[in-house]
Amino acid sequence: MRGVDILRKKRDGLPLERDEIEAFVRGVTDGSWPDYQASALLMAIVLRGMNADETAHLTRAMVESGAKLDWTGLPGPKVDKHSTGGVGDKTSLIVAPLAAACGCIVPMMSGRGLGHTGGTLDKLEAIPGFRVDLSMDEMRGVLERVGCCIVGQTHDVAPADKKLYALRDVTATVESIPLITASIMSKKIAEGIDALVMDVKCGLGAFMKTRADAKALAQSIVATGRGNGVRTEALITAKDAPLGRAVGNALEVREAIDALRGNAPRDLETLALTLTARMVVLGRLAATQAEAETKVRAALTSGRGLDTFRKMIAEQFGDARIVDDPSLLPTAPKRLLLHAERGGHVVGVHAELVGFAAMMLGAGRDRVVDEIDHAVGVRILARPGEAIRAGDSFAEVHYGNENRLAEAVMLLRKAWTIGDAKPADAPLLLEAIS
Amino acid sequence: MRGVDILRKKRDGLPLERDEIEAFVRGVTDGSWPDYQASALLMAIVLRGMNADETAHLTRAMVESGAKLDWTGLPGPKVDKHSTGGVGDKTSLIVAPLAAACGCIVPMMSGRGLGHTGGTLDKLEAIPGFRVDLSMDEMRGVLERVGCCIVGQTHDVAPADKKLYALRDVTATVESIPLITASIMSKKIAEGIDALVMDVKCGLGAFMKTRADAKALAQSIVATGRGNGVRTEALITAKDAPLGRAVGNALEVREAIDALRGNAPRDLETLALTLTARMVVLGRLAATQAEAETKVRAALTSGRGLDTFRKMIAEQFGDARIVDDPSLLPTAPKRLLLHAERGGHVVGVHAELVGFAAMMLGAGRDRVVDEIDHAVGVRILARPGEAIRAGDSFAEVHYGNENRLAEAVMLLRKAWTIGDAKPADAPLLLEAIS
Repeated sequence: MRGVDILRKKRDGLPLERDEIEAFVRGVTDGSWPDYQASALLMAIVLRGMNADETAHLTRAMVESGAKLDWTGLPGPKVDKHSTGGVGDKTSLIVAPLAAACGCIVPMMSGRGLGHTGGTLDKLEAIPGFRVDLSMDEMRGVLERVGCCIVGQTHDVAPADKKLYALRDVTATVESIPLITASIMSKKIAEGIDALVMDVKCGLGAFMKTRADAKALAQSIVATGRGNGVRTEALITAKDAPLGRAVGNALEVREAIDALRGNAPRDLETLALTLTARMVVLGRLAATQAEAETKVRAALTSGRGLDTFRKMIAEQFGDARIVDDPSLLPTAPKRLLLHAERGGHVVGVHAELVGFAAMMLGAGRDRVVDEIDHAVGVRILARPGEAIRAGDSFAEVHYGNENRLAEAVMLLRKAWTIGDAKPADAPLLLEAIS
Repeated sequence: MRGVDILRKKRDGLPLERDEIEAFVRGVTDGSWPDYQASALLMAIVLRGMNADETAHLTRAMVESGAKLDWTGLPGPKVDKHSTGGVGDKTSLIVAPLAAACGCIVPMMSGRGLGHTGGTLDKLEAIPGFRVDLSMDEMRGVLERVGCCIVGQTHDVAPADKKLYALRDVTATVESIPLITASIMSKKIAEGIDALVMDVKCGLGAFMKTRADAKALAQSIVATGRGNGVRTEALITAKDAPLGRAVGNALEVREAIDALRGNAPRDLETLALTLTARMVVLGRLAATQAEAETKVRAALTSGRGLDTFRKMIAEQFGDARIVDDPSLLPTAPKRLLLHAERGGHVVGVHAELVGFAAMMLGAGRDRVVDEIDHAVGVRILARPGEAIRAGDSFAEVHYGNENRLAEAVMLLRKAWTIGDAKPADAPLLLEAIS
């Protein structure tokens, strides 16, 4: 089977067979396929697409390129939540301990931020001492004792994904529903989970800008998960404004702790509780969404969720005292309040612009090699729908130095839209795909 | 200007700017663009296309990647003919000396065969001693003394094309009208010619299978030539059957010599005379096609064309005695006649199948590194439209060993279609694009 023939087939819009896809993934993993053929095939896939069968074959081949984690013997359903990423989305930090407190085993492998979206691992590393590079044995220990852990992708999980993602990043072949599906799902399936709740963000601040794209990705993910024996459900959620009031790593850890104490902004609470309840349902620990929500709320109000988070931090070598004393988290030396030039109602806060502003302050990475400043970020003082008077502050910038402060402030000023009328409440949960 | 941004633009179907195309060609030539980005961009170009401006920019950038030949001081218009390649097409061997005999300067750079089509250089190398690797000074000398030469692409002409072609060959990105146009025209423009007649083959035995594709390529080539100051015209010619009666390098040289003596099969004669006359018109050595045809026919019947060919061979270090004694050309040790199983009329001879059969006998290359046997090939005894009786021979196979003889014979048997009725005469010249 020659690479060039596989390329020609996809170039001409024909579906690839399972053995052709396997040859490609194997060749990319062991280096026998040259990068120039892999990248040309990736571009053909972006432009010609892949059907559900091809996507399932691609995902399975990527899973089989590496190790599959095995949690045999751990009591309880293995359930995870994953999101396509969004500005200010610290949901994983809330959902993982809450689901564990409800009886789920959550072996969450998460990623780092790139560009305007933050990464769960970066947020956790704001906690002094926290380690995300656990071995599989260490993971098993944490899961046994706590029920959840949040770690980085281990080297032996889906190595094909690492190689393909590096190539996609430099060849403008990231934006493809089958490739995104295979990248996400290969890692999730390799986690050895029984069920997955996927949060597909849709809107200005999301990777999927349109409802149609979000739905197509959600359907592709659900079909691929099920085709690989993982009970999978996707929620399409609105992502125009940042989630909650904090953007920036340590600021978001603080907000997650607040949320686990029952003090979350409405959108963050709704999303975290809904996702956790779906995990509980898919994990078959509750028969209905209502029953699951009752369980989750009990885990929250009893403090068991917060306690699980505290234990997980300690098990992952972090300083768990930050849960009760957030001042132990890194703090930016300087703050700047931004004031509204006019009064009215906040009509919108553009998540992507806020994300880029935070990145410029040092909260995120422009390139993979960039260092992160965990302390910096943005506090959102005026959220969409809230009234504001001229001169009121709408954002608080936490910064370390003035290198790119002016640019960040300019972006933040652009991000807020203030109008006369109070905008209608926009729903956060748009659709469930199962 | 980042490569990934250029890729993204073309991926999304947007036209590239001149400086973006120049950055790509420069990067490919000097190696600063990695192959994986170049191949992904090539795939995006295949699937998204390029408009006329982009194609002209690409062609110009490829010309400028190397040297442009300069024939200042040579008297007469510099005119060339090029074809998209076809089985049995030895027209260049006839056209170059005939056009030179009419007063044109023909600095023809030609190519080698790959796959089922033969290459002009391979045919000429069937002549003992013939050298195609002339330096520019040697070329100038031959042009001064003879008026034509046929050589290989020198290393310093369009180096970007060499790199891109090598990459296209292994990434299924050959089939693209803008890329084919730029590849052909960059080399032709670098030849330093005033005018070009392009023979775009269309049909079963051609690279362009449909009339629409052939026309699109012809139009693209004409526009690109004119946009770069070369008077360019394209003829779309039918290519279902092999041209003439000989397929195979030495066999084709013999047939070209016969043609220059006025003894060519009708299709070959028509094509060669028409193309040469268009060269004479575009070279402004005749005002009308009729006047040009009279000149060309005079060059043929007077023997000046043959004499020019004889001189060109000698100037290019070949044994010119082959012109008068073709038995000095390589001859295959064995021959096999193929007999018709039924009588009737030959309805078609599938050029591509005959081409593959000749390749299997050793006349062509499966891979660039393959050695060629100049002696082997196929003589076509029964051409489309001719009557045949059961048991008559329709082809004569010239072969050296029996390695792949059975396969070649099987393909040849498939290539001939014999029917009851004499088929209508199909026109050879389908359309002129100027």
